Amino acid sequence: MRWLTEESIEHIALGAAVLGTGGGGDPYLGKLMALEAIKTYGPIKLLSIEELADDALIVPLSMMGSPTIGVEKIPSIEELVAPLEKIEETLGQKAAALMPIEVGGVNSLVPVLAAAAKGLPLVDADAMGRAFPESQMVTFYLDGHSADPTVLADEKGNTVVITPKDGHWGEKLARAITVQMGGSSTVCDYALPGSVVKKSAIPGTLTKSEEIGRLLLHKSGDGTHPIKRLLAVLNGYELLTGKLTDIQRTLTGGFTRGICEVEGIHDDAGRMVTLHFQNEQLLATEGEKPLAMTPDLIAILDVETGQPITTEGLRYGMRVTVIAFPCDPKWRTKKGIETAGPRYFGYPVEYEPVEKLQEGGGK
Amino acid sequence: MRWLTEESIEHIALGAAVLGTGGGGDPYLGKLMALEAIKTYGPIKLLSIEELADDALIVPLSMMGSPTIGVEKIPSIEELVAPLEKIEETLGQKAAALMPIEVGGVNSLVPVLAAAAKGLPLVDADAMGRAFPESQMVTFYLDGHSADPTVLADEKGNTVVITPKDGHWGEKLARAITVQMGGSSTVCDYALPGSVVKKSAIPGTLTKSEEIGRLLLHKSGDGTHPIKRLLAVLNGYELLTGKLTDIQRTLTGGFTRGICEVEGIHDDAGRMVTLHFQNEQLLATEGEKPLAMTPDLIAILDVETGQPITTEGLRYGMRVTVIAFPCDPKWRTKKGIETAGPRYFGYPVEYEPVEKLQEGGGK
Repeated sequence: MRWLTEESIEHIALGAAVLGTGGGGDPYLGKLMALEAIKTYGPIKLLSIEELADDALIVPLSMMGSPTIGVEKIPSIEELVAPLEKIEETLGQKAAALMPIEVGGVNSLVPVLAAAAKGLPLVDADAMGRAFPESQMVTFYLDGHSADPTVLADEKGNTVVITPKDGHWGEKLARAITVQMGGSSTVCDYALPGSVVKKSAIPGTLTKSEEIGRLLLHKSGDGTHPIKRLLAVLNGYELLTGKLTDIQRTLTGGFTRGICEVEGIHDDAGRMVTLHFQNEQLLATEGEKPLAMTPDLIAILDVETGQPITTEGLRYGMRVTVIAFPCDPKWRTKKGIETAGPRYFGYPVEYEPVEKLQEGGGK
Repeated sequence: MRWLTEESIEHIALGAAVLGTGGGGDPYLGKLMALEAIKTYGPIKLLSIEELADDALIVPLSMMGSPTIGVEKIPSIEELVAPLEKIEETLGQKAAALMPIEVGGVNSLVPVLAAAAKGLPLVDADAMGRAFPESQMVTFYLDGHSADPTVLADEKGNTVVITPKDGHWGEKLARAITVQMGGSSTVCDYALPGSVVKKSAIPGTLTKSEEIGRLLLHKSGDGTHPIKRLLAVLNGYELLTGKLTDIQRTLTGGFTRGICEVEGIHDDAGRMVTLHFQNEQLLATEGEKPLAMTPDLIAILDVETGQPITTEGLRYGMRVTVIAFPCDPKWRTKKGIETAGPRYFGYPVEYEPVEKLQEGGGK
């Protein structure tokens, strides 16, 4: 157990935007809200998964919807705790701790706010090890756990409890409800006992986000460029440094979908890389050749500071470095690739690990 | 209390299609299912509202969605009882009786099936006195009762419990969920104590449907035309007898919307009446002049037999008599007209009672 400080939150907000560039358009929004919540309600305990009692109810809490809308629709504390209170009522058990369902953007910090407001501890883990756009893309689903109940709430006072046939139906129904709710909602799903979280969640991901954020905010003693240090920590690869020359973004079915193009500069002059996103960056291609793809991670960083640029923050002319790095091994299983690999998202390519694509024969 | 016989069900199926020409495209489907259910499970008790205990939980059960889809998607008994079992679980109380939320088409008989399967009595009442396309168009809503919880289920095994802010949000969320569920769902909403049902429901409407059905199926001793006898029972008006010359039908947002045109024949030669529908027939016009409008009832009958033709059954060239008759007085209040009057459905006319439109100064 340790206490989350204001500095931790600054770092988590920044680091989470490297792990999930789309999930919650503005990680700074989440940061400001989380800092405000700590000021108002007091500090928050961060628990490692080893500390969880086997029968303790651990409740993930997140926002659903397009980040394009999330940017403008700031949730109130009432809206954030509404699905939590409803899922407790439905299950007849109080939450022992909250956890982020994903690290990435605002959803790393949404549970911080609710934990502060309810005086609950937070678990240093998530169920993606990154951010993904659909709710069944969680390690709990990979391990066969049910999405029943999935609870949604909005700022108008509506709540909905879904008992889905499976995780895909949970996503489909929750997404349609979120669209009706105005394009964003607050959600609790995969509320599970500590025993399951210990086996199934990806541990230490808030701490990992915090380390990434700290690295990017503080210069190294030897003056190494922050992107170099980041790649070392993430076992990652630089795909390209260049200039954003095209961004196409549409809001359909509750997602922000689109592509952006980066034209190489300096050593990469003459190259052109296309990034395909659905809330998250999912595929990087150069001509016909894939450079990296989901479930591995792709992030767009400011060329100077190494700070991540969210999908919503992309602007014509920005100078960026595109990096890619390996996902958690849970996503590289057959079910992991079926659930969140490129074919699931409609890209006609077979999954290849980023190490293999970048180093040829694999390392 | 009386027992519903197979003959009662035959009559109700036919009579309900006069009161709601859209609600469930095929009343014969409901009839066959209800007859089958009685054969399988045994007879059903029909209770008058006076017989209800004040604290008994009375649960309306219906199908939601476009009748165009309802025709092809036959619900199983499991799907029909799923929302009932879920609402009982949510409220922590067993249903003492079921009731139709509307009389009209298949929704008059859907609760018959579920009542047979669960061995529950049925209440001789509904909450519309006709059929309406949206779920807040019920006398319970007019009287300020909540739509919490609204429970939906589908044939795949999904259930959803909505706690809506108000009846309009209940409708909006339920409709979006129904579309995702494949265009039709089974629903329990406005589950209320007997004390409320006694005050707020429209009593005797299954018996009324049965009487209408009996009238249409059996010749009178003096050979009076069935439509004449029907108009006497309903205090109704013949708007026109003619030939269906145009039918436009589109399926949008979970509703079947459209118009049909009837060209007068015999005494009505030279006249042309347009009928505007959204699941139900809502407005009849002749040129610019309204002849009858929601919440009053409009029905299309076979010119020879007087048997009702549902919105889905309308075909080019059919010879029909269009009739209109007054709604229950609850719908003629300010809130009733706001909730289900012509302006609510987007028709730019002020409500006028059918008696006034047909007789001039009103009777």
